[in-house]
Amino acid sequence: MHPLDEATRLERLDRERLAARTSTLYTNINGPFGGFTAAVLTRAVMEDERRQGTPVALTVNYCAAITEGPFEIAAREVRTGKSTQHWSLELAQGDRIGATASVVCGQRREVWSHHPATSPAIPPYESVSRFDIQGRGGWVSQYEFRFAKGGIDFTPRDPADLRAPVSLLWMRDHPERPLDYVSLASMSDAFIIRAFVVRGVMTLVGTVTLTTYFHADEAALKEQGAAPLIGHADAAIFTGGFADQTAHLWGTNGKLLASSTQIVWYKE
Amino acid sequence: MHPLDEATRLERLDRERLAARTSTLYTNINGPFGGFTAAVLTRAVMEDERRQGTPVALTVNYCAAITEGPFEIAAREVRTGKSTQHWSLELAQGDRIGATASVVCGQRREVWSHHPATSPAIPPYESVSRFDIQGRGGWVSQYEFRFAKGGIDFTPRDPADLRAPVSLLWMRDHPERPLDYVSLASMSDAFIIRAFVVRGVMTLVGTVTLTTYFHADEAALKEQGAAPLIGHADAAIFTGGFADQTAHLWGTNGKLLASSTQIVWYKE
Repeated sequence: MHPLDEATRLERLDRERLAARTSTLYTNINGPFGGFTAAVLTRAVMEDERRQGTPVALTVNYCAAITEGPFEIAAREVRTGKSTQHWSLELAQGDRIGATASVVCGQRREVWSHHPATSPAIPPYESVSRFDIQGRGGWVSQYEFRFAKGGIDFTPRDPADLRAPVSLLWMRDHPERPLDYVSLASMSDAFIIRAFVVRGVMTLVGTVTLTTYFHADEAALKEQGAAPLIGHADAAIFTGGFADQTAHLWGTNGKLLASSTQIVWYKE
Repeated sequence: MHPLDEATRLERLDRERLAARTSTLYTNINGPFGGFTAAVLTRAVMEDERRQGTPVALTVNYCAAITEGPFEIAAREVRTGKSTQHWSLELAQGDRIGATASVVCGQRREVWSHHPATSPAIPPYESVSRFDIQGRGGWVSQYEFRFAKGGIDFTPRDPADLRAPVSLLWMRDHPERPLDYVSLASMSDAFIIRAFVVRGVMTLVGTVTLTTYFHADEAALKEQGAAPLIGHADAAIFTGGFADQTAHLWGTNGKLLASSTQIVWYKE
């Protein structure tokens, strides 16, 4: 079983409630990797027999630190219409709510389509060297990264000479795994914190809220399979202790598979 | 009283519940303007005595058509930490949930700040002619629009000769109104549907989910006052009946005040 499938395994308690536990693999400094939380909440909807359609949008609000161990997910079907289905979810450890989320599923149909955006130019996968995780544990070691721009490089910079907040890379699950909505949810958070890229230093940070839009239908996921994705991340503003981050995940064929935004709290 | 304040007026029923009603001004073809719904939900948090900090992020999920008349908002304080406060909201008409929302408030502090993004080049406000609403009712008449690019122009286009999904404009409340989080929430949805711009035709559409990040603190809102904002909207992909839309609202001083993304369902 792939580590992501093992990590996000759910046990159904009743119609609305599921049990799961944090993973020792998809971890961050202060608890589970945000992408793991996004993935397990997406999986809760994917595995629900009430689900109609496939995920179109996901918002996860990271309310409190999640501690190592078991947690429960409550998944409420708020409204099912002809085109969309709305879910509200909560992840809790006892009385403490660690995350809230909303998932929108949609009935995708063969209608007019148009793809004005184009994937960023990046050297071929084989020509970009693989990022050496150098014994780093945690979520970073669950991915293969090949940075063409804005890689992991902790060299403090002069405040007058900051680096651009942009990363461009090839990325995929490690070990390889056919792409699905669960891995896409996780991967939409698998970018380095923009402030680290800009400043070259680690500071205390935490994702506050993450919104991911899934543009890939099931055929597009199948077409992509386990091939590497093109990832692009950027940020517009860091102010008052809150920064934005935007991310795009492109398929090998140049199609946009997912886009994502998040707000990151930073201490200093 | 400004129409937006009149339209979003709330009556407190108890600690968690508020009563309001749809507006005859901020309307769309099939119910309230999505920006109105975003605004009234933001106001519900703004007016709550339990609020700590100012809004950083808002996600609204449009679950079902809201019919003309009264509705109730339930606002639940999910978790209040040192830096952030998480809210879950529901807008209902009887048993029918019209919208769910999450709001994150943040304690903004004087820390490192950085603004790598720059506002798009646009001709001066005075030099761009004001869009003539030509007797159009509804939400469009509640705003002043001065389109430098991608205006309202319903001239059907050849499928091989589509227009770019980009709009660039000066915009503000009409009548003028000092900017606050409530108006910023509404304005983040006050862009024409991207498919209309691209195709030059109106089709059946509806916003499914909207996420807005507020980058402005209260000082930045005050500095902007009632001056016109620079608005920029774009889209990356239209597929399977769901399209994305991104929007940025910039202050007169070049600062990013809010950024927003949404998924729009389209029928054909």
